[in-house]
Amino acid sequence: MKKPLILVSNDDGITAPGIRYLVEIVQALGAEVVVVAPDAPQSGMGHAITIGQALRLTKNPVFGPDIEAYECSGTPADCVKIAKHYVLKDRTPDLVVSGINHGSNASVNVLYSGTMSAAIEAAIEGLPAVGFSLCEYGPQADFSHVEEWVTQVCRYALDHGVPAGTALNVNIPKNSDTPIAGLRLSRQARAKWQEEFDRRLDPYQRPYYWLIGSFVNLDHGTDTDEWALANNYVSVVPCQFDLTAHHGLDQLSAKWQLPMPEAMEAQAAPQPVPSGDYGPATQS
Amino acid sequence: MKKPLILVSNDDGITAPGIRYLVEIVQALGAEVVVVAPDAPQSGMGHAITIGQALRLTKNPVFGPDIEAYECSGTPADCVKIAKHYVLKDRTPDLVVSGINHGSNASVNVLYSGTMSAAIEAAIEGLPAVGFSLCEYGPQADFSHVEEWVTQVCRYALDHGVPAGTALNVNIPKNSDTPIAGLRLSRQARAKWQEEFDRRLDPYQRPYYWLIGSFVNLDHGTDTDEWALANNYVSVVPCQFDLTAHHGLDQLSAKWQLPMPEAMEAQAAPQPVPSGDYGPATQS
Repeated sequence: MKKPLILVSNDDGITAPGIRYLVEIVQALGAEVVVVAPDAPQSGMGHAITIGQALRLTKNPVFGPDIEAYECSGTPADCVKIAKHYVLKDRTPDLVVSGINHGSNASVNVLYSGTMSAAIEAAIEGLPAVGFSLCEYGPQADFSHVEEWVTQVCRYALDHGVPAGTALNVNIPKNSDTPIAGLRLSRQARAKWQEEFDRRLDPYQRPYYWLIGSFVNLDHGTDTDEWALANNYVSVVPCQFDLTAHHGLDQLSAKWQLPMPEAMEAQAAPQPVPSGDYGPATQS
Repeated sequence: MKKPLILVSNDDGITAPGIRYLVEIVQALGAEVVVVAPDAPQSGMGHAITIGQALRLTKNPVFGPDIEAYECSGTPADCVKIAKHYVLKDRTPDLVVSGINHGSNASVNVLYSGTMSAAIEAAIEGLPAVGFSLCEYGPQADFSHVEEWVTQVCRYALDHGVPAGTALNVNIPKNSDTPIAGLRLSRQARAKWQEEFDRRLDPYQRPYYWLIGSFVNLDHGTDTDEWALANNYVSVVPCQFDLTAHHGLDQLSAKWQLPMPEAMEAQAAPQPVPSGDYGPATQS
């Protein structure tokens, strides 16, 4: 049987402990592993891409001679783009994994997550993809309990696939005396960050502001990722990149008195649509 | 009647022509206008936020004495956060508008869009929000036909609201001899960027890479934003920030043989959930 090809990226950078755990786990699955990861931490980058600047891409032997690994000067989404279209070219990965992030990407954090943007970028390319995060922050995070669960999710994804048009957001509870209860399918909890800004003065008496946020869960559902994590489950949320709120279309049609679009695709001949190209100041 | 309060942001920066058009249009609605926009172009920033760096916020009289305007060193999402929690504090905007972006944010571009990340950040805060984009790139883009449509959308949003949990992604066709056909409710077209990387050598013979992308529409539906724009409609897509793919949960449950989460929220007492705080390397 042919070895599966697994592409690995992350957002904490190629030297973060979390990606080393992920590389070792997928290598132990018997996979051929290629890594393209940021050359520096990219936390909070969301789905940013680099426009108007060139990228650097450099081989980095950090994972030893058996693993083809590159560091890239771009964002996590850039890493997946350059991996797919330049590094791998005609080699199609059987799975793309991102992480393991140092810190939770559950609930609304998925929107700010560079880890998940790498996975979602892969999903846009039609590749099965999973983002892994550990609910413990900092470089000293304890990854000793994650192998079993990351292995299980990767095996399932390789054997049974991932729903089309989605990437999985997998969050793993912090290590504790309580054993992990299992995998739990979940929906994204409704939550927000309650922000504050700490105003300070620099040595030249000019103000600057630190963002301080506290996570506020607004959702008491037992089917959410936050509930799963609070109850020591590994949460698994399939995330889609089609943001259309179909219930919102119905509401707008009623309240704004606009007709619903005809959904009868078969009746209409394909129309030419505008295409574009990247370039400085051409996309946002 | 009290003047409505409208918060304006964008991603092309506070001096871009598009935000000037937007400010003038919402001012003409009789609104009190507050602007917090990036101090430099932030195209392609997706939903990035600034972690581990402080922000600058400086009054900028670029829109004249009647308009309270600030430039911020952060991303579009940062601008909305600092506007809501520091600049406005107890003043709640009746509407948040972002743009007018120089370039389309239809289809999958919404994911990379700083314009829409500002609007979505506002929606997470529970505020009605709209991102506006013109399907013409560059600083010379022709905005002369947009006023009627931006005005209409803002009026509808002020009078009838925006569906909860969504921000509207409004794209306006490039100016042409054909008049705009009207507003059209749409869903996000399935599309991708076909990427290429142009490899060059710097003066020190080190390689660097330019991302070159061509937009490929994979969706022939007549109910999509791309179809609307190709047929000279202004497309209106309600975008949600809950990324959960519920059909994906069903598929995973069947194929991975995992039970569906109990949705019976009422039966379960609220559980404590993990909270967190921002800080260097604490979130991604």
